[in-house]
Amino acid sequence: MTSNPPLPMPYGPPISLELARTIVAAAEREAIKNQWPMAIAIVDSTGHLVLFQRLDQTQLASMEIAIKKAESAVKYRRSTKVFEDMLASGGVGLRALSLPGAIAVEGGLLLVKNDEVIGAIGVSGMRAVDDGQVAEAGVDALRP
Amino acid sequence: MTSNPPLPMPYGPPISLELARTIVAAAEREAIKNQWPMAIAIVDSTGHLVLFQRLDQTQLASMEIAIKKAESAVKYRRSTKVFEDMLASGGVGLRALSLPGAIAVEGGLLLVKNDEVIGAIGVSGMRAVDDGQVAEAGVDALRP
Amino acid sequence: MTSNPPLPMPYGPPISLELARTIVAAAEREAIKNQWPMAIAIVDSTGHLVLFQRLDQTQLASMEIAIKKAESAVKYRRSTKVFEDMLASGGVGLRALSLPGAIAVEGGLLLVKNDEVIGAIGVSGMRAVDDGQVAEAGVDALRP
Amino acid sequence: MTSNPPLPMPYGPPISLELARTIVAAAEREAIKNQWPMAIAIVDSTGHLVLFQRLDQTQLASMEIAIKKAESAVKYRRSTKVFEDMLASGGVGLRALSLPGAIAVEGGLLLVKNDEVIGAIGVSGMRAVDDGQVAEAGVDALRP
Repeated sequence: MTSNPPLPMPYGPPISLELARTIVAAAEREAIKNQWPMAIAIVDSTGHLVLFQRLDQTQLASMEIAIKKAESAVKYRRSTKVFEDMLASGGVGLRALSLPGAIAVEGGLLLVKNDEVIGAIGVSGMRAVDDGQVAEAGVDALRP
Repeated sequence: MTSNPPLPMPYGPPISLELARTIVAAAEREAIKNQWPMAIAIVDSTGHLVLFQRLDQTQLASMEIAIKKAESAVKYRRSTKVFEDMLASGGVGLRALSLPGAIAVEGGLLLVKNDEVIGAIGVSGMRAVDDGQVAEAGVDALRP
Repeated sequence: MTSNPPLPMPYGPPISLELARTIVAAAEREAIKNQWPMAIAIVDSTGHLVLFQRLDQTQLASMEIAIKKAESAVKYRRSTKVFEDMLASGGVGLRALSLPGAIAVEGGLLLVKNDEVIGAIGVSGMRAVDDGQVAEAGVDALRP
Repeated sequence: MTSNPPLPMPYGPPISLELARTIVAAAEREAIKNQWPMAIAIVDSTGHLVLFQRLDQTQLASMEIAIKKAESAVKYRRSTKVFEDMLASGGVGLRALSLPGAIAVEGGLLLVKNDEVIGAIGVSGMRAVDDGQVAEAGVDALRP
């Protein structure tokens, strides 16, 4: 009836603190370049917090959101934008709201190495699209 | 790609109990004038409760809602009506429902002094628009 | 085998906001007289929050504790000092720690009128004995 | 009846990310020198998370504990060792277990500047005394 879904990417070993630092530093540079007060979080491949920082004057909701965006990405093995798009499409897509721990706002991205999930980055503080841009800058630091 | 967002208003020192009393008294007058049984809460600039009261016969859900509306306003540095409007516009606006601690019902307003957030007021008990009217009366007490 | 326990005091109608104000004002006077930064909460006979205030510079844990002391008193129809004394006596008295919502620190007292529970007061901010002294000052305001 | 308690130290402005980094770096050096896998957290003067990191192979409970130790210190304006000592003394000291958010294990210390609380550090991962030693190394970085 339905086509076979693609097999999900496997979970790999947890991201190291050292690598998490490289990613956060890259994301922070992007945030500071834009003068965006933001919280940035990295969780490992099992959803446990590795590294977190927030710039001064970040909105107070963003500490929790940054961490939850990263957790959402790892736990559902997809970016938070996937859930945001589900909501935007309406209808059955609204079911994303009933998934525990799912954040449906851009800014949570998987961190992948050797085709395995090693963790995720979550960014919060400005508009969803800005959060996504800074998270992307973090992910870019993984590329050789 | 997108236009640069406006920088958020900075968080300032916490509102004093004395000033919170002035604001609640003004909001209460508006509620009593309309015979509206309501809960009214003030949190400071970091989301901690300063002052709370409810008139007799307020609906029991409103104690928690009034406090959470005020917290939502401070933590997201915007009135709860902003989230209500996002929902009303549909589509991607529904993502407001996945933001932790965000209340999407009118009645939570920022308290601003010298261009800094010093706290927020949250009101609950009647229709959203009534809650908003009473919160507004509280905010008006801040004006010289 | 065991003697019959005394019947508990019945729950009566909820305390009015007006009466709650009289009680909080009396407690506040005692706190200010001693220069004690404290949070003071009143809940009604069903455990719902009626009135709350905190003096500037109150320790941040005390907002939650003041409310929980008042709730504990109403829900268990006894002062929080009863549980504190249970702990202090050791042995089976430690079971107080396993009771949901029970606070075992002085400062939560029942408010009684016409031999019925109409609510409770909770105070937090200084040492347990100080919290108890201020709560007592609130209760005294109920006496004719 | 009882002697007057000392007035608590006032809460000051929130610690900056920059200063938090200095403190975490000093604590991390102490942890690495001892080869102790640990989580280190800094919260500001109102209990909001500023900075967090954990070394690889830290026990998984310690992420939450480090943050909660720091929160406990700020919210109760005292080190977590104070609650630990209360428990150790037995009797009425056991009431510390009923205080919401109180962690009674060494490793949470206040950060003080100009006689005001600007935040707290929380450390977790090894024995309580080790956690305390690393937190102390962080606090030492505040001294001129």
